[in-house]
Amino acid sequence: MKIAIDAMGGDFAPEQNIVGVKLALDEFPDVSSFQLVGDQKIIEEELKKHALSTNNSRIEIIHASQTITMEDSASAAIRKKKDSSMSVAAKLISDKKANAVVSAGHTGAAVSATVVFNRMLPGIDRPGIASVFPAPKGPFIMLDIGANVDCKPLHLAQYAILGEAYSRIMLNIKNPRVGILSNGSEAGKGNELTRESSRILQSLPIRFLGNVEGADLFGNKVDVVLCDGFLGNVVLKCCESLAKAISGILKENLKKSPVRMAGALLSKNAFLELKELTDHQEYGGAPLLGIDGICIIAHGSSSAKAIKNAIRVATEMIKNKYNETVIDKISKIDWKKGLEC
Amino acid sequence: MKIAIDAMGGDFAPEQNIVGVKLALDEFPDVSSFQLVGDQKIIEEELKKHALSTNNSRIEIIHASQTITMEDSASAAIRKKKDSSMSVAAKLISDKKANAVVSAGHTGAAVSATVVFNRMLPGIDRPGIASVFPAPKGPFIMLDIGANVDCKPLHLAQYAILGEAYSRIMLNIKNPRVGILSNGSEAGKGNELTRESSRILQSLPIRFLGNVEGADLFGNKVDVVLCDGFLGNVVLKCCESLAKAISGILKENLKKSPVRMAGALLSKNAFLELKELTDHQEYGGAPLLGIDGICIIAHGSSSAKAIKNAIRVATEMIKNKYNETVIDKISKIDWKKGLEC
Repeated sequence: MKIAIDAMGGDFAPEQNIVGVKLALDEFPDVSSFQLVGDQKIIEEELKKHALSTNNSRIEIIHASQTITMEDSASAAIRKKKDSSMSVAAKLISDKKANAVVSAGHTGAAVSATVVFNRMLPGIDRPGIASVFPAPKGPFIMLDIGANVDCKPLHLAQYAILGEAYSRIMLNIKNPRVGILSNGSEAGKGNELTRESSRILQSLPIRFLGNVEGADLFGNKVDVVLCDGFLGNVVLKCCESLAKAISGILKENLKKSPVRMAGALLSKNAFLELKELTDHQEYGGAPLLGIDGICIIAHGSSSAKAIKNAIRVATEMIKNKYNETVIDKISKIDWKKGLEC
Repeated sequence: MKIAIDAMGGDFAPEQNIVGVKLALDEFPDVSSFQLVGDQKIIEEELKKHALSTNNSRIEIIHASQTITMEDSASAAIRKKKDSSMSVAAKLISDKKANAVVSAGHTGAAVSATVVFNRMLPGIDRPGIASVFPAPKGPFIMLDIGANVDCKPLHLAQYAILGEAYSRIMLNIKNPRVGILSNGSEAGKGNELTRESSRILQSLPIRFLGNVEGADLFGNKVDVVLCDGFLGNVVLKCCESLAKAISGILKENLKKSPVRMAGALLSKNAFLELKELTDHQEYGGAPLLGIDGICIIAHGSSSAKAIKNAIRVATEMIKNKYNETVIDKISKIDWKKGLEC
């Protein structure tokens, strides 16, 4: 297995990316090569700083002279910065020089680069980013969370196949329940997109349970939540924002008296466990599904641990033959059946 | 001021609704009449149970033989149950027999009944439900949270006027900042609806700050958040669901050892303060804005306190001349200017 890492992408790149690879070197012995993509000199210095030899046979530096910043617009960055670390990394997959790419850089640019330089899986029109959400009775996934802002019903139906396979293969859910995010659980509820999509979804060989409303999102009623990239992105970020606000307010409240502070100290581990459960660094980034190749998009603020976990997800998708499973399942689907409903 | 109360709507109706009115009788002396709409016999029994005289000059029972249940579809309920408590209450406003209506029943039916029996304010095409959200530095409002699922750009622009006035008049924000909920804060981000809406919003005489992304929702960057009713409903309910999940997990974690339990006990007030801040019962229901009349939609699970607070919001909207302010502001807007942009 060969994994390309966008060494320059992310708020704490290149340092945390390199330290993440250092952790991965020990933890994932079946990865034969970690391809660090970015400015050769900077990467070499960073390797040295962290006592990694440039002669290590499992580390390869692939020079890329440019870096995409958060100020760049996604499509312009790919068009204009032809030698960016993200573009060069994405090309490595299409050239079959790497099996997977991991990036903590500009999400839009990562999606654009991957789509520009790689084919889609047969039967898939648009890629979707899947995010793993923690919930009281175990995690669920939601897609798309930002790759495809204006979705068509057929895209959501394709996301159902992509998400169902991910839930089954990567999260070990036997017969994943799939739902579409809507403004009510009753069948008639929804907007034009969800109502039209539901008609197609009912015809697919998956366990489609219909609408899932916001109130049930963290209620473990389904394992795969479908939505367009606009809705998914807003919901994901609102949830992150709310969790942060709640913990911020609680912290302030706990500081208001010495008694409360003592209480907080005694119950500290309860808070730490909650933090761990909701820590995005544990989940190892969000896979960009639907492309012929593996691409893991890590959080912009990824630490070394997050980068290492993103590499873990990439290796598992390869080992568990995620794309092959999707190709097999999708080849058996008669899309016209759903579209005629 | 005369306030009509849908006595039969809500999970804990009619009891909590009647007790809510009992609290309101004392607290809001300027309300000359509380019109309890619903089954006369049931209401009379409930009044008796709570030591309220049917001869009280400030209480009036308006008989309605039917009740809309959660199983009814919104539009069918209004069409078929012509003598439902919600429909009868909504008619009281259009007949100028009441200034406002409060209901904790079926939200869709409350919207339908209010729209069917009342005119819209001049210049407003669709009503929108505004919800007050707590945030660390003070509350903000979001609309629409469910009245109008498939919105047009012009509807969002009208919501801006409705929401801005609400924030100014009801939440005492001097010069409210208005934003549109999107998948990124940069100007180019968004879907077709938000991009088109933004063009119109820029031409309005309000403090429009452009996109507000999910990550900033609870960051007090704007005072009024605009979105279509589908997105708003999903986000509102996801937030409620997440808050519940977090508190559920934390509770479980705190029960895991006697030390943690002792700690939780000491810091109990910090949790209570958080609960109070996020308690929907304090906010008194969500106003249905844009109609010629006042309609407050209380949470389905409203307690007496929530009903009383919903009545408070209704009285304040009347006293503060909310609708008059909107009519004045909207009459001065040249909508074509925005549409030509």
